Amino acid sequence: MDKKYIFGVDVGGTTVKMGFFTVAGELLDKWEIVTRKEENGQYILPDIAESILTYLTTKQISKEEIAGIGIGVPGPVNDKGVIRGAVNLGWKGEFSVVDQMETLTGMPVKASNDANVAALGEMWKGGGQGYRNLILVTLGTGIGGGVILDGKIWTGTSGSAGEIGHIHVEDSEKEICTCGNYGCLEQYGSATGIVRLAKRYFEDHDVNSVLKTADISAKAIFDAVKAEDTAAVEIAKQFGEYLGKGLASIAAVVDPEAFVIGGGVSKAGEVIFEYVRPVFERNVFHACRSTAFCLATLGNDAGIYGAAKLVL
Amino acid sequence: MDKKYIFGVDVGGTTVKMGFFTVAGELLDKWEIVTRKEENGQYILPDIAESILTYLTTKQISKEEIAGIGIGVPGPVNDKGVIRGAVNLGWKGEFSVVDQMETLTGMPVKASNDANVAALGEMWKGGGQGYRNLILVTLGTGIGGGVILDGKIWTGTSGSAGEIGHIHVEDSEKEICTCGNYGCLEQYGSATGIVRLAKRYFEDHDVNSVLKTADISAKAIFDAVKAEDTAAVEIAKQFGEYLGKGLASIAAVVDPEAFVIGGGVSKAGEVIFEYVRPVFERNVFHACRSTAFCLATLGNDAGIYGAAKLVL
Repeated sequence: MDKKYIFGVDVGGTTVKMGFFTVAGELLDKWEIVTRKEENGQYILPDIAESILTYLTTKQISKEEIAGIGIGVPGPVNDKGVIRGAVNLGWKGEFSVVDQMETLTGMPVKASNDANVAALGEMWKGGGQGYRNLILVTLGTGIGGGVILDGKIWTGTSGSAGEIGHIHVEDSEKEICTCGNYGCLEQYGSATGIVRLAKRYFEDHDVNSVLKTADISAKAIFDAVKAEDTAAVEIAKQFGEYLGKGLASIAAVVDPEAFVIGGGVSKAGEVIFEYVRPVFERNVFHACRSTAFCLATLGNDAGIYGAAKLVL
Repeated sequence: MDKKYIFGVDVGGTTVKMGFFTVAGELLDKWEIVTRKEENGQYILPDIAESILTYLTTKQISKEEIAGIGIGVPGPVNDKGVIRGAVNLGWKGEFSVVDQMETLTGMPVKASNDANVAALGEMWKGGGQGYRNLILVTLGTGIGGGVILDGKIWTGTSGSAGEIGHIHVEDSEKEICTCGNYGCLEQYGSATGIVRLAKRYFEDHDVNSVLKTADISAKAIFDAVKAEDTAAVEIAKQFGEYLGKGLASIAAVVDPEAFVIGGGVSKAGEVIFEYVRPVFERNVFHACRSTAFCLATLGNDAGIYGAAKLVL
């Protein structure tokens, strides 16, 4: 029987996002289930399998019509689908997500790291369409990076390729990063990071700013930038210095066609490029100066799209 | 007829190095010819072709026994063998090194960038044997980088992958780098760079040091380090700070198995790792902390070995 459909699964610390796609990449249906982290997260994969099997029964679709199940998980996954722990899910030790899911569902399974999978999704159906070498830079609570080279996910030796939030960019940092180091890119360039920059700015500068009466967020800062708030512009410049230099370092290593910027900060829109791109161009090797910058477009669906693409 | 041999050619600005290999990678013969850069370097490829054809005639070996000719050139080469200029050779504009050499020799040709080719050579028969994901870091007049992912050269979108000498590492630099930027890694971590660090050190510090009576070179500095010269140790620490952080940034992007260190500075031996590795470990994402560091072993022959490997 012809293979018509794919399941794309994005496992997060709170919910598991599930998508049902045609093999051409059309999203037909999506839903979420709760991530049950108790007892070392042992129910997570069985819950996903049950949700998939129930869906097939309900829709009267046979397993033979399914090309496969793709799954993105928040941890380092090697090219055989073996994960070495996932703190956010309660998973410890090493085991094969692929083997377990294939046993549970009786369908072919592919697995990879969630940040990489999101990058694949943006390449396939999102902001990175038309590129085969790209870095997805997710500016959220931290900074996630997904590396796509020649159309495929590059996971690295220990599954840590694309850990670009932990590029060292500041020698004078006194606060520790979640990774245990000091002065990592995500301490300045993430949604949390730019808020930190803003708080420090107001500690050091007694100035008027619309930001002083607002809850400071990345969005509020860039809204204030658009309203020509002097303090907000200075904060955006600091953010741009760090992120622009960080992306320039990445370009000197892998020379991608494009950076696709996603996550909470990217909701501010193209205005962020006005602060990142000039710094990037000033610091990058000249042959990489024309690297494209684009916004991610799939939002929270990037993971299910990319997971589905894993199967193809 | 069975293919028994390969030519490996490394085109430099002064000489072209040529090697004659078995397909198993045994170097049977090597020689050099002068690089004739006059008239936009138009004689370089014909000279190489003539040298190869003369060699075959002299040794009474037929073209049918040759698996191919691999060639490394100092400039950006795409995966079709097209080079976009090579300043050091006088080459301007775009042309296919592969097409020209195939026409001139009547044998199959593969071409790539010289730094990438050297990395391939070190993986195949040098310090990087046993690794399939490695970065060759050549610390010479500048810093060259060769990126090998999954056993293959990664050239990048514009042929600039591995331009790791131009990772920005210092905001306060006032002198310009050869690339036109300020504060690039090669301004501190190359053979030239560490000498610059030494000169600056002695401008700022009125101290006794064996280096003050010597011609300062990377080797002299690390010889003095071994003799516990205080100034030399301080200079080596500065060098290690820059290089260790730079390599940590690279690891956060591609997560290689190994860094293979070559070029003039590497002649100082494993002592350089004592200054680079602790800084690397302190700044790198934790999962990459055990990345291997090894010395390149092929020296000036890395290019011909890697060029030969291109053919296989």
